[in-house]
Amino acid sequence: MTDYRRLRVALLGAGAVGSQVADLLRTHADELSDRAGAALDLVGIAVRNPDAPRETDLPRELFTTDSEQLIVGADIVIELMGGIEPARTDILLALSSGADVVTANKALLATHGPEIFDAADQVGASVYYEAAAAGAIPIIRPLRDSLAGDRVQRIMGIVNGTTNYILDRMDAEGSEFADVLADAQRLGYAEADPTADVEGYDAAQKATILASLAFHTAVPLEAVHREGITGIDRQTIDAARHAGYVIKLLAVCERITDAEAHSPTGEAISVRVYPALIPREHPLASVHGANNAVFVQAEAAGNLMFYGAGAGGVQTASAVLGDVVSAARRHIAGGVGVGESTRANLPVVPIGRVTTRYQITLEVSDQPGVLATVAGILSEGRVSIATVEQTIEPAAEQSLVPAEQGIAGIARLVIGTHTAREQDLSDTVDRLAASGVVDRVVSVLRVEGN
Amino acid sequence: MTDYRRLRVALLGAGAVGSQVADLLRTHADELSDRAGAALDLVGIAVRNPDAPRETDLPRELFTTDSEQLIVGADIVIELMGGIEPARTDILLALSSGADVVTANKALLATHGPEIFDAADQVGASVYYEAAAAGAIPIIRPLRDSLAGDRVQRIMGIVNGTTNYILDRMDAEGSEFADVLADAQRLGYAEADPTADVEGYDAAQKATILASLAFHTAVPLEAVHREGITGIDRQTIDAARHAGYVIKLLAVCERITDAEAHSPTGEAISVRVYPALIPREHPLASVHGANNAVFVQAEAAGNLMFYGAGAGGVQTASAVLGDVVSAARRHIAGGVGVGESTRANLPVVPIGRVTTRYQITLEVSDQPGVLATVAGILSEGRVSIATVEQTIEPAAEQSLVPAEQGIAGIARLVIGTHTAREQDLSDTVDRLAASGVVDRVVSVLRVEGN
Repeated sequence: MTDYRRLRVALLGAGAVGSQVADLLRTHADELSDRAGAALDLVGIAVRNPDAPRETDLPRELFTTDSEQLIVGADIVIELMGGIEPARTDILLALSSGADVVTANKALLATHGPEIFDAADQVGASVYYEAAAAGAIPIIRPLRDSLAGDRVQRIMGIVNGTTNYILDRMDAEGSEFADVLADAQRLGYAEADPTADVEGYDAAQKATILASLAFHTAVPLEAVHREGITGIDRQTIDAARHAGYVIKLLAVCERITDAEAHSPTGEAISVRVYPALIPREHPLASVHGANNAVFVQAEAAGNLMFYGAGAGGVQTASAVLGDVVSAARRHIAGGVGVGESTRANLPVVPIGRVTTRYQITLEVSDQPGVLATVAGILSEGRVSIATVEQTIEPAAEQSLVPAEQGIAGIARLVIGTHTAREQDLSDTVDRLAASGVVDRVVSVLRVEGN
Repeated sequence: MTDYRRLRVALLGAGAVGSQVADLLRTHADELSDRAGAALDLVGIAVRNPDAPRETDLPRELFTTDSEQLIVGADIVIELMGGIEPARTDILLALSSGADVVTANKALLATHGPEIFDAADQVGASVYYEAAAAGAIPIIRPLRDSLAGDRVQRIMGIVNGTTNYILDRMDAEGSEFADVLADAQRLGYAEADPTADVEGYDAAQKATILASLAFHTAVPLEAVHREGITGIDRQTIDAARHAGYVIKLLAVCERITDAEAHSPTGEAISVRVYPALIPREHPLASVHGANNAVFVQAEAAGNLMFYGAGAGGVQTASAVLGDVVSAARRHIAGGVGVGESTRANLPVVPIGRVTTRYQITLEVSDQPGVLATVAGILSEGRVSIATVEQTIEPAAEQSLVPAEQGIAGIARLVIGTHTAREQDLSDTVDRLAASGVVDRVVSVLRVEGN
């Protein structure tokens, strides 16, 4: 065996990912040393309770509650505790002590990223976070390095495995949201409290990280528009399928031109998370189960897609260990860390100023003149109609009054729009709802991906 | 504008990719400086004929025939000439002069990679080659860095756009190889001499690069088994579709256990390029047109896929510029370059020792006992049958003798095997061909991807 320089690696947290990382650091020690050009000595694991029962057979003496002592003696600190504190304080301590940091903490980076990257810059250290944006899928290095000479125009990411699992099963089986969610919870694909996933909070954190990297701009989490999937029912999924679409929870990060943003170049960005219709032939449509994928459109490179497991202890551990090897190589090579590139500093526009295409589904009375009224309201609202489909449900299904008595049935109007401004669309839908001819606004969904 | 340190960038070659790189270096200069943390001054472009007509409006004074003088004064040298010489000599000169090198030259790296990487190591410089393996698709950094803490088990790559375009159109349209090739040549998807693409030489070079990275082993080009797609006819494609498969030219790089390889761990690798059947539901099956994709199976990360444009001047320029920014960041950060990791040094086994599944299509006389004879030969040859399908073509279609005269028709046997060793399979097919009951071996295809 080569006699490598030894580096001291400290691990904070021993949950699903942390215990896998610790196991792999020990079982693959020789290979990792060859990859890194340095021996990676796991010197300790900071946990709240060293005596808690664990599934790994890691020696008891590795565990400690004294994270501070562990951190200040380390060359590389791996933070896998999650949450804001004490992760933030521990990472800042590690950086100020001269260690490089590897973290999978999306919540922390989405809220305190600039503070942490600034602290790293000041001491010439690096922060690695491949596992924070899309689990095992290598997306950070491609955005940060491979596409550094290109201009990313748009990212559309399926970055939450739980919601993709739920929507995919609803689409495949024609099941209802609540039933699939319950099943997902039973199978471990969803948490007992599924809010962070199904309401899009997790995807919004990841969108913040991806957009910050892609557009070289510190994007605050508050600037991300966020909608979840709890309003998506079986009927909406069926209608989407009928129209050649599939519904996915997307994180969309887009470079746009916005006169009101007052940026020097007129450029701005939009970052938003919502369930959207995408054409079934789009590469993202074939991302099934709990898998993730990030579709990137760049000015020169064209369309790229990165696909893989978005979560899971051992999968995420792969991304963490890749970062550990990178950190070790940097230690051996010398030189300062390359900081985050945030010099573009583009303004983030609110959702009202974003333009996209929409599909509006309305229930209206099947009476003469209704379509004309609806079309008039859309036109006044600067929403241009691309397609209209009307399906008339027989009145007999809606009431006990036989159709031949002259009572009209209920018609369903599915309107596809050309590109419209979100604020115009939203105001127009309000006017439709109040118009008297619309019984119910069934759904308003954005159309992405073509 | 920030007052950045200035780096001298020399470009060798001004073809389709080179002229795009030169244009983007100039038009995106401010943005590239912000990304790199350094001003990238294009100081010259070495070409054979500075006065040749070009599609760009680059100033005449940038062009020079004196590549040596240009190289020795540069901080970063971009080699986009292609071919072995003078590219090899120029790159070695650049490295010995202290420059970092960016190249898209797959032929050179596949044949002289170790020499070049050794030269870089000796001076602490870096060689970047994101554009050499799959055009615009970021695959080098994911393999080299993101998966450095994992163990890649297998790569299956669609790494040649021309052959994917041809096979995809044959599959979609039921056309013949020669017709689609002629059309591809007309549309610029194939060269006038298509040998490098359709015979798999281009894919074999890329396979060498991918396998070397993935398995930390210098894989010589001669060790790559290579077959092209010229033998794939319409009937074979139709039969594949009927059986639920699509045919793709795959570069397969696989970690295997091989007792005869005499490696310390029993581990070895296989690198091979051939047209293979893959299930239509596999993510690689939906890679259409001239697109590329690299499917990676890693021990911890699971299945990953990287998708995008595999060629094209501006797309490839994106990858080259990403490398230029990386090289610039390294110059600014200081420290030595991180060399290639080739310490695993695994043996590459010949194709005869590889195991995979096969689909064998035979024409046999439709007579009693034929299947029993065929099955017997397979069994003796240690090839285990998984599925058999027999289709009887009416004799009337095969000859002018009417079927009712008692002459047997010709039957087609499609045999799917379990995993078999390539040498056993090949010997068995020879025995089948000589058995007297087989009229013709129509095709023998490997089955990959499940």
